[in-house]
Amino acid sequence: MSNLTVDSGILSPVRAGTPAEETTCDHALLQAMLDAEAALVRAQAALGTVPFEAARTITRLARADLLDLRAIAVLGRGAANPVVGFVQAFTALVAAEDADAADYVHRGSTSQDVLDTALMLVASRTLDVLLADLDEVAAALRALADGHRDTLMAGRTLALHAVPTTFGLKAAGWLVAVTSAAGRLRRVRDEELVVQLGGAAGTLAGYVEYERLHRAERGEASSDEYARRLTARFAVETDLAAPLLPWHAHRAPVAGLAGELALATGVLGKIAVDVQSLARTETAELAEPAAAGRGVSSAMPQKRNPALATLIRSAALQVPAYAGVLTQSMLSEDERSAGAWHAEWQPLRECLRLAGGAAHTARELVSGLVVSPERMRANLGLTGGLIVSERLAAVLASALGKAAAKEAVGGASSESAATGRPLADILAARPEIAARFSAGDLEALLDPAAYTGAAGELTHRALSASGDPVRAVGPDGF
Amino acid sequence: MSNLTVDSGILSPVRAGTPAEETTCDHALLQAMLDAEAALVRAQAALGTVPFEAARTITRLARADLLDLRAIAVLGRGAANPVVGFVQAFTALVAAEDADAADYVHRGSTSQDVLDTALMLVASRTLDVLLADLDEVAAALRALADGHRDTLMAGRTLALHAVPTTFGLKAAGWLVAVTSAAGRLRRVRDEELVVQLGGAAGTLAGYVEYERLHRAERGEASSDEYARRLTARFAVETDLAAPLLPWHAHRAPVAGLAGELALATGVLGKIAVDVQSLARTETAELAEPAAAGRGVSSAMPQKRNPALATLIRSAALQVPAYAGVLTQSMLSEDERSAGAWHAEWQPLRECLRLAGGAAHTARELVSGLVVSPERMRANLGLTGGLIVSERLAAVLASALGKAAAKEAVGGASSESAATGRPLADILAARPEIAARFSAGDLEALLDPAAYTGAAGELTHRALSASGDPVRAVGPDGF
Amino acid sequence: MSNLTVDSGILSPVRAGTPAEETTCDHALLQAMLDAEAALVRAQAALGTVPFEAARTITRLARADLLDLRAIAVLGRGAANPVVGFVQAFTALVAAEDADAADYVHRGSTSQDVLDTALMLVASRTLDVLLADLDEVAAALRALADGHRDTLMAGRTLALHAVPTTFGLKAAGWLVAVTSAAGRLRRVRDEELVVQLGGAAGTLAGYVEYERLHRAERGEASSDEYARRLTARFAVETDLAAPLLPWHAHRAPVAGLAGELALATGVLGKIAVDVQSLARTETAELAEPAAAGRGVSSAMPQKRNPALATLIRSAALQVPAYAGVLTQSMLSEDERSAGAWHAEWQPLRECLRLAGGAAHTARELVSGLVVSPERMRANLGLTGGLIVSERLAAVLASALGKAAAKEAVGGASSESAATGRPLADILAARPEIAARFSAGDLEALLDPAAYTGAAGELTHRALSASGDPVRAVGPDGF
Amino acid sequence: MSNLTVDSGILSPVRAGTPAEETTCDHALLQAMLDAEAALVRAQAALGTVPFEAARTITRLARADLLDLRAIAVLGRGAANPVVGFVQAFTALVAAEDADAADYVHRGSTSQDVLDTALMLVASRTLDVLLADLDEVAAALRALADGHRDTLMAGRTLALHAVPTTFGLKAAGWLVAVTSAAGRLRRVRDEELVVQLGGAAGTLAGYVEYERLHRAERGEASSDEYARRLTARFAVETDLAAPLLPWHAHRAPVAGLAGELALATGVLGKIAVDVQSLARTETAELAEPAAAGRGVSSAMPQKRNPALATLIRSAALQVPAYAGVLTQSMLSEDERSAGAWHAEWQPLRECLRLAGGAAHTARELVSGLVVSPERMRANLGLTGGLIVSERLAAVLASALGKAAAKEAVGGASSESAATGRPLADILAARPEIAARFSAGDLEALLDPAAYTGAAGELTHRALSASGDPVRAVGPDGF
Repeated sequence: MSNLTVDSGILSPVRAGTPAEETTCDHALLQAMLDAEAALVRAQAALGTVPFEAARTITRLARADLLDLRAIAVLGRGAANPVVGFVQAFTALVAAEDADAADYVHRGSTSQDVLDTALMLVASRTLDVLLADLDEVAAALRALADGHRDTLMAGRTLALHAVPTTFGLKAAGWLVAVTSAAGRLRRVRDEELVVQLGGAAGTLAGYVEYERLHRAERGEASSDEYARRLTARFAVETDLAAPLLPWHAHRAPVAGLAGELALATGVLGKIAVDVQSLARTETAELAEPAAAGRGVSSAMPQKRNPALATLIRSAALQVPAYAGVLTQSMLSEDERSAGAWHAEWQPLRECLRLAGGAAHTARELVSGLVVSPERMRANLGLTGGLIVSERLAAVLASALGKAAAKEAVGGASSESAATGRPLADILAARPEIAARFSAGDLEALLDPAAYTGAAGELTHRALSASGDPVRAVGPDGF
Repeated sequence: MSNLTVDSGILSPVRAGTPAEETTCDHALLQAMLDAEAALVRAQAALGTVPFEAARTITRLARADLLDLRAIAVLGRGAANPVVGFVQAFTALVAAEDADAADYVHRGSTSQDVLDTALMLVASRTLDVLLADLDEVAAALRALADGHRDTLMAGRTLALHAVPTTFGLKAAGWLVAVTSAAGRLRRVRDEELVVQLGGAAGTLAGYVEYERLHRAERGEASSDEYARRLTARFAVETDLAAPLLPWHAHRAPVAGLAGELALATGVLGKIAVDVQSLARTETAELAEPAAAGRGVSSAMPQKRNPALATLIRSAALQVPAYAGVLTQSMLSEDERSAGAWHAEWQPLRECLRLAGGAAHTARELVSGLVVSPERMRANLGLTGGLIVSERLAAVLASALGKAAAKEAVGGASSESAATGRPLADILAARPEIAARFSAGDLEALLDPAAYTGAAGELTHRALSASGDPVRAVGPDGF
Repeated sequence: MSNLTVDSGILSPVRAGTPAEETTCDHALLQAMLDAEAALVRAQAALGTVPFEAARTITRLARADLLDLRAIAVLGRGAANPVVGFVQAFTALVAAEDADAADYVHRGSTSQDVLDTALMLVASRTLDVLLADLDEVAAALRALADGHRDTLMAGRTLALHAVPTTFGLKAAGWLVAVTSAAGRLRRVRDEELVVQLGGAAGTLAGYVEYERLHRAERGEASSDEYARRLTARFAVETDLAAPLLPWHAHRAPVAGLAGELALATGVLGKIAVDVQSLARTETAELAEPAAAGRGVSSAMPQKRNPALATLIRSAALQVPAYAGVLTQSMLSEDERSAGAWHAEWQPLRECLRLAGGAAHTARELVSGLVVSPERMRANLGLTGGLIVSERLAAVLASALGKAAAKEAVGGASSESAATGRPLADILAARPEIAARFSAGDLEALLDPAAYTGAAGELTHRALSASGDPVRAVGPDGF
Repeated sequence: MSNLTVDSGILSPVRAGTPAEETTCDHALLQAMLDAEAALVRAQAALGTVPFEAARTITRLARADLLDLRAIAVLGRGAANPVVGFVQAFTALVAAEDADAADYVHRGSTSQDVLDTALMLVASRTLDVLLADLDEVAAALRALADGHRDTLMAGRTLALHAVPTTFGLKAAGWLVAVTSAAGRLRRVRDEELVVQLGGAAGTLAGYVEYERLHRAERGEASSDEYARRLTARFAVETDLAAPLLPWHAHRAPVAGLAGELALATGVLGKIAVDVQSLARTETAELAEPAAAGRGVSSAMPQKRNPALATLIRSAALQVPAYAGVLTQSMLSEDERSAGAWHAEWQPLRECLRLAGGAAHTARELVSGLVVSPERMRANLGLTGGLIVSERLAAVLASALGKAAAKEAVGGASSESAATGRPLADILAARPEIAARFSAGDLEALLDPAAYTGAAGELTHRALSASGDPVRAVGPDGF
């Protein structure tokens, strides 16, 4: 039974084999639980209530490969959490080498202190690899925005051509979104990932009692500050932040983390759906990077599927739902809920590994994105000038008055759409227009390149701001 | 890398080690993919377009333990699905033994035919074990309802005592809900789990073409009915149902399945929250079965936590969100979505394994549930008679008129609540009441046992109906 | 304050002004609450425990326009539900005309009996209009499938051309999905919409007590069957089904209803995303019906936006989330939850009105859908024959052997994709192919019209089956 | 038709009649749309491209009561959004007074600029009233935490008594959570609510073109900075923040807002489930404030239901789902999605009004919360000392060794639980314990008041930190 492979990634290729899968796998979680136990005993040792030698032994033996993961997993059904069985197994492991040290494993502690802290460690390690990937995504997007400042393309709304824009501005929009999401996640990693230390019901009574007994044996007074100092030291040992209060039953730290992961995955998902929209056979303005085995179809040898965008989108369709479980689980009764806490673990991990997998995939997608300015330009011409009808209406209104302009644009547009004749020709044939605009004027007026508004300025602004990702961009980037 | 344990159940004790975990693990999924491939080639052989010998060889080699699961999982990133790499690996395996047979692996097929069918097989196998557990849950509930027809307890609404009820009726309510959910899932298993067979884009063109070539080589005509017959035979070989059309891009079969799993888990979750409500230290009317290692707290030796109910509730808090991903993914563009399909796999599996784990856990919970009729009776008395104030108001209204009755009940209730004096004494001291009701009358009137309404009849009705779980109970049981 | 317009539909155009908005508006809900009260007293009268005259008076005055909706809404904060204030207002209304009759308003009842039954009435009435719209959608789809059996188009997977298909088969797929969803909803409407009758805590004790008092006054014995008969009669009076037990705390009836609405909306959403995909400027195979004011852009006069598809998709993106609240709320503790019940009302109504609005919008969309077989044919040619490379691989494998065929197809495809030369020309230039296939052979081989597999047969099958929407199609249609 | 009351709050009592309902009603939304139009024309006037007189006229006429809300709502179906019909109606209104001014209504603009900005205005106004309520909630919680620093009660985990705590610490936990949520929402309101200004597809081309024409008429050069300056001025006129880029298709600003509202509602929901848990009839440690009409049951006159907590919980069960729709809708293709944008409006508004209603309700709940220290103390004694068994185990381990202590505590606990004898008596009867602990020692050891760990210190810390809500508490409060 110990070998049952419940999940090796086969149904979740967006993260199979990515760094985030490694930082979130059961082995990594078990190691984080061990790291939490070791950090706790080191913190107690640092405050003088546990022998340093015991802390050293415990720390040295805190290696996931010495424990039977599957056995611990199955034992978890007994206590409704994996920590009770884990502590037994780890205590036995330590006792086999040093019975005295074993006395100090998990001393004064409770399951939730270990598991919450371990999940925060897993989050922290996953955010490290995720942020590294997001930084690479941003770098690639900066290059795209910079290199395509003047690459004209159709702006599309509600599936149709609207007005011209540039691919530079599109990439700049992606860039600002990614930079902002990365800035937010960096703040989460640096400030909002907190240790859990509360003992059985959030009063730290077990820790405090052991300190009292320890001092009493030595005829010393116990310290009013012990709980605060232990928490602070535990935070130092784990490299996490220290909370103001234990958060056993106040779950904003994890719900907020999941929410940020959903936002970041959404930002990447937006890039993915844009790539898919522009990669469609008829549009063909973008293509995914070619690579061996990439985008292969089992039935159709000729296709180069947008596989990376597909993977990213599959993650972005899942993460909001998993994050919602965390927010829902904030309704956590008493000092520890009988179920809401337990519902958090797996969806939180899924948020981490899917967001991480999406970022890793986005890095590959964006770095190798194949852009076709020629197709963009060709597609711009598909509507025979109608793509600048907004401009036309404004200019004609200024020349002919609003009503006459509306009639002229509407009529000419309909005729062009119906007959396929270029809009310029139709307009030139109207006397009231020919009287005011030469053929050259009309051509200039209908040139998509002349109607990109502030696209260039906006792209420039985004590139300037993205130099310093967190501050310059502001809280939401937009 | 092939050994990375992404998930061995450590964060999901509700299903760790349960039958549903085994039927849904990656190994089981891989086996189901192999079963789908083997069934497909057997179906082709049965229709005469593939040599039987090849079908036999392929079927014989279709064993998950001959393939490298993790390698296939990681290769999945290339095509955005695991089937392409899987087919390569399986074809190589077959070719190593019989190069000719290898030609017939996955012939005319597409990734989605294999993966959708495999997931349906996994669903079918998981529903088998899940339904076996639900049947045991129902049997245990029948015994509880039958044995506690006359066990009085407080009915509670909005957290407070409302009017009396019986534990028999409470168990009967659980029973009807479970029986109905089981009936619905049985119908899903028997009628709505369908093979997928559509080829590259839902026309079965690949299959049809190979048949045409096969017939042409023999100078035979191909059959207009081939697609229908192949689908029908594929269904027979897999023991799944045959769909009217391929459902590549029409995802109601999987979204509907997930929805039913969410309903069933919700039904079990309702039992769990009821058990927790009644197990609270102050109430203590129910307790979970005692068992070694069950309900253990890492910090507090005296507690016997409602661990099973906690596990069930943790599942019921997750499944609706995962099922929602499936419903959301019905927005599947074209003949195969670039992402929506891919987002389904993992949440569908989570629905299956969490529902299955919850059912297995509920079986243990309900079979050993410890009921305390004494505590139920004692708690009924906590409000000194106020629990039948509804009845009192009705009877007094009939005797004194509505207004006078309202005043009397309201005044006496407030006085009782404020002073703790029994309601009967207070009422007996009121002349207008004493004139009409003797002390014995009042005692009888305030006896909770005399105010259980139709509880007995309803319990009886539920027990009678649950003999034949599907038909007698009706579509929704209620 | 009574005039505050909280919602007149401005933020939800998909249902603004549709029949489902009318059947679900607050006025309709209030009327349904009145209908429930009137049906209850009529049922009591029919069983002889209330004077017919009172039942008639109450029924006659049960008119929503006689009550102050907003005042009742705001009063709802007091009891956490709108029924308490509603009953007071309605009782006063009746009392103003007939004080005796007023005594029988809401007799023996509880808020939940009224509100749950009223919501079921609202559901029933909304399903009526929704099903009428779905039937029209199906009729229009039948016409499309029938008329376009031979309209060739590209089948698309992962955003790219895959193999040819027909628009008839695409419409047939939509048809089967809609027919199946309608069949399921019809079953829900006819069998699963149940009255709620349980009294204060599900024992019907209040109703039973009033019957007992009534009989006692007359020296008659009360009936053991009263609860069952009252429920049955209440069902008759409301034209809803009778449940086996009260379902106060067992919420599968509403969660199941919401789930079916989500499935139906998902089916319509699938049509919408397909329409959008094919309406894109570059593809232009479909267009929405032209109508005054339809698809108008505020900035761009030339656009005819796929506004109807947009509305439908906006509904389909919301309903799964709202339905999820209902499933989540199945975790309903005790005989009535302190919050989970209350969380159901608004999302259930949103599911109803969004599904209804989407169906009404789909009717307009599908009935007037503009299909362009010319564009479909033109787009089919975009890949110069690559769209039948699957067929080519099969045929060449049969002629040249698998390895040589793979090399030939791969090489020729790459060359064609890179150079734009037609695949036929490239193939004809290869000696091993020219030796076996004439130019005419190659042309025939690469003709998309010759590679539609079973599209015709499947379309025929779908049309045949959809004649009898419920039975022939089977539980899930697919 | 103009009077159809789609929603007057009857199904959502948590917000019926609250300030947040008023700031989010359709009338308020329409006013915000008018405010956005007026601010836009004032911004254009300030930059010299529109006559001030026109801006003044437009601003003066921008009054929601001059427009027909329902007519605009129903017209919204034409364009899939309400702005097109709104602009027509408003333009006609202005034209009726000043035809020249009417020319400047919505000049260069697009529907999304108006609607996104209007929703941000609605959000800003709702956050104002919501934050005022949260501040009152925090003030009331400060008083509770301060006043109950020494009020002993049972800490409960998994539904059972765990170890003692204080009500002061419980209130302090609520306080820190509320203060933190308020701090986060305040930051959102002050920094992250941004105007939308992008024109038809995010390039601001319409605005830029009108400026160019305006300058050209005067022989002036247009400004490269116009887009940036117009955005900045628009932000000033609306009192919202200016984004770095238009966020038409990048939806983190709204998804992030919804996420924060879900967190805040979750924090309030946690308080609600705690109140319900402690208000249960058997526990009775807390009660809701008494008020006329509050907590009334339609069937049971004696009940004082926790109606306020019920309302809050009903909101907290809904908001995460609605917020999830917003995160999901970040998958917004192209320059404006054909549906994802449209799916946001209603759920965003629901998040605002439910969060606002919950905060208003929480203010009433917390300000009048009735605390019973006597019941808390009495319940603490229910387990006869077992509630401090954690301490006992620690102390005895120190005195007797770990194994002997474990045996003693386990045995005595079981005996006490089984027989009801006080733990102290059982322990005193054991010779190995009697040898080391006097009866007085045991009494002191089992005194819950002596085992509250750091509860006092933590409460003090929370109160100190909450003086300055935003900074002192840190990013997540915990």
